Amino acid sequence: MDLPALRVSDRLGQLWTWCLENGVEWMYVQSLPNIRWMTTFSGSTATALVDVSSRRVHLFVDGRYGAQALAQCEAAGAAAEVHVLDRTDEKVPLMQSLVGRADIMFDPRELSVAEHRHLTEKSWSVWRDQSGPFGSLRRVKDAAELARIALSATIADAALQAVVADGLAGHTERHIRNRLDAHMLDNGADRTSFDTIVASGPNSAMPHHRPSDRVIGASDVVIIDMGAEVQGYRSDMTRTHVPASATREVREMEEIVREAQSLGVAAMGPGVDTFDIDEKVRTVFRRNGVEEEFVHGSGHGVGLVIHEEPLINRRQRAVLACGEVVTMEPGLYRVGVGGVRIEDLVLITTDGREVLTHSPKELSCPR
Amino acid sequence: MDLPALRVSDRLGQLWTWCLENGVEWMYVQSLPNIRWMTTFSGSTATALVDVSSRRVHLFVDGRYGAQALAQCEAAGAAAEVHVLDRTDEKVPLMQSLVGRADIMFDPRELSVAEHRHLTEKSWSVWRDQSGPFGSLRRVKDAAELARIALSATIADAALQAVVADGLAGHTERHIRNRLDAHMLDNGADRTSFDTIVASGPNSAMPHHRPSDRVIGASDVVIIDMGAEVQGYRSDMTRTHVPASATREVREMEEIVREAQSLGVAAMGPGVDTFDIDEKVRTVFRRNGVEEEFVHGSGHGVGLVIHEEPLINRRQRAVLACGEVVTMEPGLYRVGVGGVRIEDLVLITTDGREVLTHSPKELSCPR
Repeated sequence: MDLPALRVSDRLGQLWTWCLENGVEWMYVQSLPNIRWMTTFSGSTATALVDVSSRRVHLFVDGRYGAQALAQCEAAGAAAEVHVLDRTDEKVPLMQSLVGRADIMFDPRELSVAEHRHLTEKSWSVWRDQSGPFGSLRRVKDAAELARIALSATIADAALQAVVADGLAGHTERHIRNRLDAHMLDNGADRTSFDTIVASGPNSAMPHHRPSDRVIGASDVVIIDMGAEVQGYRSDMTRTHVPASATREVREMEEIVREAQSLGVAAMGPGVDTFDIDEKVRTVFRRNGVEEEFVHGSGHGVGLVIHEEPLINRRQRAVLACGEVVTMEPGLYRVGVGGVRIEDLVLITTDGREVLTHSPKELSCPR
Repeated sequence: MDLPALRVSDRLGQLWTWCLENGVEWMYVQSLPNIRWMTTFSGSTATALVDVSSRRVHLFVDGRYGAQALAQCEAAGAAAEVHVLDRTDEKVPLMQSLVGRADIMFDPRELSVAEHRHLTEKSWSVWRDQSGPFGSLRRVKDAAELARIALSATIADAALQAVVADGLAGHTERHIRNRLDAHMLDNGADRTSFDTIVASGPNSAMPHHRPSDRVIGASDVVIIDMGAEVQGYRSDMTRTHVPASATREVREMEEIVREAQSLGVAAMGPGVDTFDIDEKVRTVFRRNGVEEEFVHGSGHGVGLVIHEEPLINRRQRAVLACGEVVTMEPGLYRVGVGGVRIEDLVLITTDGREVLTHSPKELSCPR
């Protein structure tokens, strides 16, 4: 693959700036996506301690991850020092020897009550509780991150196209899921972005249905929600196959969702408030008297995590910015009838948006 | 599939007993595996509130999961009441109306500092911090759980056998991983138990190497660590292919690991202390002067979570009991040379153990 290398020096620059502006000298980081963003380390367990004055990240890993952490930090140009811990209880004394008597900041959303207690009991530092910067900093993606997200979207598009071209009817939901997943892995995905959803007929009324042994019928509506992951970066898209022979009720639902989705995408751009975008989508549903069948938000940011900031719903406000990657995924769900959801992955650009999902909205299936 | 139904009434009986013995009237549960164990609900977001006096679990989900939660709780005979929240901030007032003025217990390992603060600020109940029972209660599996774990192990065995029979050399690590994953999904796995590891040649020195585009050579050692998941229940096994043409150094490492692994399995049984099992494994490595190349523990419990209680290592003690499912997975890792790991999934029985992994220790590959 010809992807530009992931380099973290610009990201760390933003981190140092935030820390200096917020009076943070040391920061304790437990969240793996945040650690990955700082260092590209992709293991399943780690702790980072950020040293602002020496512009250095201390990464604590166990024996399984020593060599990997060193290699990944070096490749990314992360100013990181890797500490391989033989025992978990070595961590706090080692941290304390680095920190001295300074305060340590932590994000209360990252730390459990039990770990917080352990840290405060075992160290003499003051632990300062403060909302961290990572949710915001991770929103705008750099070129190397965008290249991976775009590739993930392309891999998912290709898998959907290949599998749908062979027909959905007559196969089980699980079989279709298996073929989609295999196609993504065979074409460069490191893994699926999340558990692929294939929901047919009445199952489509459950937004997060798990693929079952149900055989897809020729007149069934089929929701497919899928994504690929490349070097940690994910894609997310949904298409609903509505055969011409589907019930009129489902076809009408699809028309409404499609209108809402197009309006939602068109509303996206730098400087736009996410609440207002959600409201535009909701207006279509309200006008058609089906707002209560729209049981989730309109969209969410996508990156190292499948649902990240900014969220697009009616519960919060956020202003979109150039370089952010978000989904637009309105849906309607009617128990006993079925559901329809359409989702695109959208990059916010300097003057508008670029849709990263290229699958046709109408899935044309043989038979 | 002809699996016995998952029923939770016995589990809930154990939970009520624990609560009564520990003076707990209400318990707040945030961990998804614990919620799944109580109710079989398999969604990605939920909170449970356990009402001991009326022997009832209140399950709070968002709009995406209402229908699914109802269906799953009913099928499992969970004494659950499902509350579908339109907005997250409805949760605490609704909980408070159920609890009245009673205390609520929570496990400090499950709750973040931020959520704990939110709950204590928004409610008038006293929040009692206490280590919860789930880690212990989930250790012993019932017959329906064991059936799923055994099936997961069988699915993984079959995939390994099929893929290895076609040969490893000449393929990339990723290709072998893709074939293993596809075979498991095609034969009944709901998903892989964790990210399948295929680590060849020098990559095998990294215990958690991610499959790469490296082409496997005919004389390469290849570690394959894999598992399947069926209805939430997982399997875990590792085999190392050491071709006859591998270096003498690697072949010697394999002999040592194999001896350690056999001794570890043989040491398992009800009433045995996990520390002593780990020590038996370690003794083999120590005698051969390679203990520092064994960079992880000897094993761990497996169930709804891939690493759960009891852990088998030198940092803690736990006594094994009949009905527990644990791994035995010693390994050696030598940077620049390679690694060897052998892992079986083992059920503890009334009078000893039953190995659930049936793949041969020696993988015979064509060419």
